Amino acid sequence: AVYDMVAPLHPADIAELFAQAPVEIRRPLAAAITDLMSGEVISEMNEWVREDLLKSLTGQEVANIIAQLDLDDAVVIVSELDAQKQQETLQALSSEDRAAIERALSFPLESAGRMMQRNLVAVHENMSVGDVIHYLRQNDDLTTDFWEVFVVDPSHRPIGTCKLSKLLRMPRHALIQDIMQPEQTLIPVTMDQEEVALRFQKYGLISAAVVDESGRLVGMITVDDIIHIIRDEADEDILKLSGAGDGDINEPVLDSYKSRVRWLITNLGTALVASTIIGFFEGTIARMVELATLMPIVAGVGGNAGSQTMAVTVRALATNQLTASNCVRSITRELRIALLNGLTVACVLGAGTWLVFHNVLLTEVIALAIMSNIIIGGLAGVLVPLTFDRAGSDPAVASSIFVTMTTDAMGFLTFLGLATVSGLTGA
Amino acid sequence: AVYDMVAPLHPADIAELFAQAPVEIRRPLAAAITDLMSGEVISEMNEWVREDLLKSLTGQEVANIIAQLDLDDAVVIVSELDAQKQQETLQALSSEDRAAIERALSFPLESAGRMMQRNLVAVHENMSVGDVIHYLRQNDDLTTDFWEVFVVDPSHRPIGTCKLSKLLRMPRHALIQDIMQPEQTLIPVTMDQEEVALRFQKYGLISAAVVDESGRLVGMITVDDIIHIIRDEADEDILKLSGAGDGDINEPVLDSYKSRVRWLITNLGTALVASTIIGFFEGTIARMVELATLMPIVAGVGGNAGSQTMAVTVRALATNQLTASNCVRSITRELRIALLNGLTVACVLGAGTWLVFHNVLLTEVIALAIMSNIIIGGLAGVLVPLTFDRAGSDPAVASSIFVTMTTDAMGFLTFLGLATVSGLTGA
Ligand SMILES: [Mg+2]
Ligand SMILES: [Mg+2]
Ligand SMILES: [Mg+2]
Ligand SMILES: [Mg+2]
Ligand SMILES: [Mg+2]
Ligand SMILES: [Mg+2]
Ligand SMILES: [Mg+2]
Ligand SMILES: [Mg+2]
Ligand SMILES: [Mg+2]
Ligand SMILES: [Mg+2]
Ligand SMILES: [Mg+2]
Ligand SMILES: [Mg+2]
Ligand SMILES: [Mg+2]
Repeated sequence: AVYDMVAPLHPADIAELFAQAPVEIRRPLAAAITDLMSGEVISEMNEWVREDLLKSLTGQEVANIIAQLDLDDAVVIVSELDAQKQQETLQALSSEDRAAIERALSFPLESAGRMMQRNLVAVHENMSVGDVIHYLRQNDDLTTDFWEVFVVDPSHRPIGTCKLSKLLRMPRHALIQDIMQPEQTLIPVTMDQEEVALRFQKYGLISAAVVDESGRLVGMITVDDIIHIIRDEADEDILKLSGAGDGDINEPVLDSYKSRVRWLITNLGTALVASTIIGFFEGTIARMVELATLMPIVAGVGGNAGSQTMAVTVRALATNQLTASNCVRSITRELRIALLNGLTVACVLGAGTWLVFHNVLLTEVIALAIMSNIIIGGLAGVLVPLTFDRAGSDPAVASSIFVTMTTDAMGFLTFLGLATVSGLTGA
Repeated sequence: AVYDMVAPLHPADIAELFAQAPVEIRRPLAAAITDLMSGEVISEMNEWVREDLLKSLTGQEVANIIAQLDLDDAVVIVSELDAQKQQETLQALSSEDRAAIERALSFPLESAGRMMQRNLVAVHENMSVGDVIHYLRQNDDLTTDFWEVFVVDPSHRPIGTCKLSKLLRMPRHALIQDIMQPEQTLIPVTMDQEEVALRFQKYGLISAAVVDESGRLVGMITVDDIIHIIRDEADEDILKLSGAGDGDINEPVLDSYKSRVRWLITNLGTALVASTIIGFFEGTIARMVELATLMPIVAGVGGNAGSQTMAVTVRALATNQLTASNCVRSITRELRIALLNGLTVACVLGAGTWLVFHNVLLTEVIALAIMSNIIIGGLAGVLVPLTFDRAGSDPAVASSIFVTMTTDAMGFLTFLGLATVSGLTGA
C-alpha cells in the first residue's frame, strides 16, 4: 500500500518524504520500498536523513547505490560515511569507480575537484557539426546530461565551448572551431566551491570545464549542483552569523547542542567583559538606580546597529561585491549611515528621557551615549568582518561575537562613564 | 585609453567595473564607452548602480537598450524606472515589445509572469527528431538561448519536454512523443519567484514552461535567472533578520538610513519594555547593586539562544523544509536542545558566580534564571517565526524584534524577580 503511494513520485519527492517522516519510520519506510530507493533518491536526500539511513546498510549495499550515480553525487555520499564503511564501500566498487572516487576525495573539501563529474562530451576543433552529431549518435554509453560540448586541442586542453542549440541550428558542414565560443570560464580543480558558484552566477553559465594543474580537461561542473551550493553557502552565512553552527532542522539534537552550546559559552565569556565594565560603575548605579534601567537600551540599540552593518558587510564579502577597491568607500558609507541613525535615535530617546525624567543632564548623557554607541556599532559592523576576511578567515563565523562585545562594552562604558564624569549622580 | 582597456572585457565584468568605480566616475565612464554599453552590460549591473545611470538617459535611449534584451531582463529594467521615464520608454519601443512588457508588468511583483522570456522553442508531439532539427535550422530568428524544447498539443498546452542532448543522440526518425520526458514541472504565471526557485532546485531543472490560467504555454524560465533569485532571497533573509532592509553596499545612503532607522526606532520601543521591567525592581537593585552587573548576562545569552533557533527556523521555512507535518517535531527538537543548552550554561555560569561571590542564593538565582531564559529563547526562536509564517507574513521580517523583546523582558524578569522573591536582597 505504501509502495503504491510512493511509486509514482519523483525521486526528489521520495527523498523529501523521508525528511518529513518521523525518524523512527524512516528505516521501515526504506525497507518497504527498497526497489524505489534509487541512487537519485538517496542523492537528493537531506544529508542528515541520508547519513542515518546509510548507517543501516552494508558497504556492499552502499556501493550498489553509488554505482548508479554521477561521480559528483557519489563523492558526496562516500565522504559522509565513517572510515570503516567508507573502506568497505570502496572495496565493493568496480576498480574504475573506486579510482575515480579516490581521486576526487584527494582534492580539498568543497573544491571543484569534488564537485565535478566525468561524464562529459569533448570534441576536437576540426570536427564539423555533422561529425559531432554522428559521434553523439554512435556512442551509446555517452550521457544525456550535458548542455554544452567542450572543444579540446590535441593535448586535451579546453579551447572553447559549444552550446547544443548551436549544434542544432548550424549547418552540418560548419566547423566546430568556427561556431564555438572561444572565451570560457575554466575552473581549476582546486577552486573553492563558493568561488565556482560566483563564476557561474556572474557569467550565467550552464556548465563549465574543470582543468588540472597542466590545463587539461578533467571534468565538468553543471549548474544544477551550483544551485545547491549557492543555497548552502547562504544558509551557512545566516546560521553562522547567528551562532547556530551549520545544521538544519534534521541535524541530530546532540550535534546541534554541541555546536550551539559552544557559541553560548563563548558569549558568556564576552558578556563578562560587559559585566566587568558595569562593575566599575557600581557606585554610580547605587547613587542613581535609574541608570540600571536605561543602560540596556544604549547597549541593545547599538548592538542592533552593529548587526545591520555586519549583515550587509558579510554578504557583500561573500558575493565578492566588497573588494579592496571599494573598501574605504564602504566604510565611509557605513559611517555616514551610522551618523544619521545615531542623530535620529539620540533625538527620539533624548525626547523620551526628558518627558519621563525631566532631567536635562540625564537626557544629554543618554543621547550622547546612544549616538556614540550607534556609530561604534556601525563601524564595528563593517571593520570586524573586513578584518576577518583580510586575515583569511570566514567573516560569518566570529564577527557577531566581536561586534556584540564591542557594542555592549562601549554602550555601558559611554553611558555609565558619562553619567559619572558629568556629575549626573552628584558624586 | 579607457575604451581599449574595457573593450576586451565580458559584459558581466564591465557591469562589475561600474559597481567598483566611485559614484562620480560612473557617468563619465559610461559616456567614454557608450558603444560598449550593451543591453547585457546594463542588465548584469547592480540594480542601484543601474538605477542611477539610467536616470541620465532619455526614454528613447533606455528603449534602445531594452530592445536588445530578453523579455525577462527588459521587464526588470522598465519596472525600476520612475513613472514618467517608464511611459517615455514604453512609447519609444516597438508596439510588439511594448505589449509584451506591459503584459509582463500586469503580473504581480516577483511572480513567474515577470521572470519568463518568450524566446522559446515549442514543437508538436508528432514531429520526428529530423523534423525538429530541420525546423531549428530553417528559422533564422530563433534564439540559441535554450536547452530544452517544449512539446505542446494542438491547443498549445505543454505535454512534455525534450533535452537537446536527446535530439542529438536519438535517430532522426524517432518521434518526439516517444523520446520526450512526459513528467514536467509547469510554472503557473502567478507563482512567486521564491516558489519557482524551490521547484528548480528540487527537481534540478534547467528550464521550465510557464503556463497561463488555461494551461497554455506562454513563456519559459531558465536556470541562470533562478540562480540570482536564490541568492537574492537568501540575502533578503539575512538582511531582514538583522533589520538591514534589503539594500546592498551600493544602495544610496539615504535609502539605507531610512530602512535601518525605522528598525532601530522599533527596537527602541521594544527596549522600553525591558526597561520598564527593570524599573519595577529598582528597589531590589538598590539593595544589591551587583544584580545590575549580572542581569545583562542573563538577557544577552538568552537572546543568543533565541537567535540561533530563529535562524534555523527562518531558513527551514524559506526552503519548505519546515511544514505542517514536522512542525510539532521541530518544536520538540528545539525544546530538547534548549534544555541541554540551558542546563550546561546554567552550570558554567553558576560555577563562575559561586567562585566570584561565594553566595549560594545568588548562584541559584542566576543559574535558574539563565536556564529558563535559554529555554524561553529557544522556544520563542521557533514559535515566533512559525506564527508569522502561518499568519502569511514573512518570518524573516519581524521575528527578531519579538524574539529579542521576549528574551530581554523575560531575562530581566526572571533574574530580578527570583532575586526579589528568594529573599536574596534581604528585603
Ligand atoms: Mg568554502
Ligand atoms: Mg551533478
Ligand atoms: Mg543533482
Ligand atoms: Mg562554505
Ligand atoms: Mg561563506
Ligand atoms: Mg554545510
Ligand atoms: Mg539573458
Ligand atoms: Mg517573494
Ligand atoms: Mg533570462
Ligand atoms: Mg541573465
Ligand atoms: Mg522575496
Ligand atoms: Mg523569503
Ligand atoms: Mg530584493
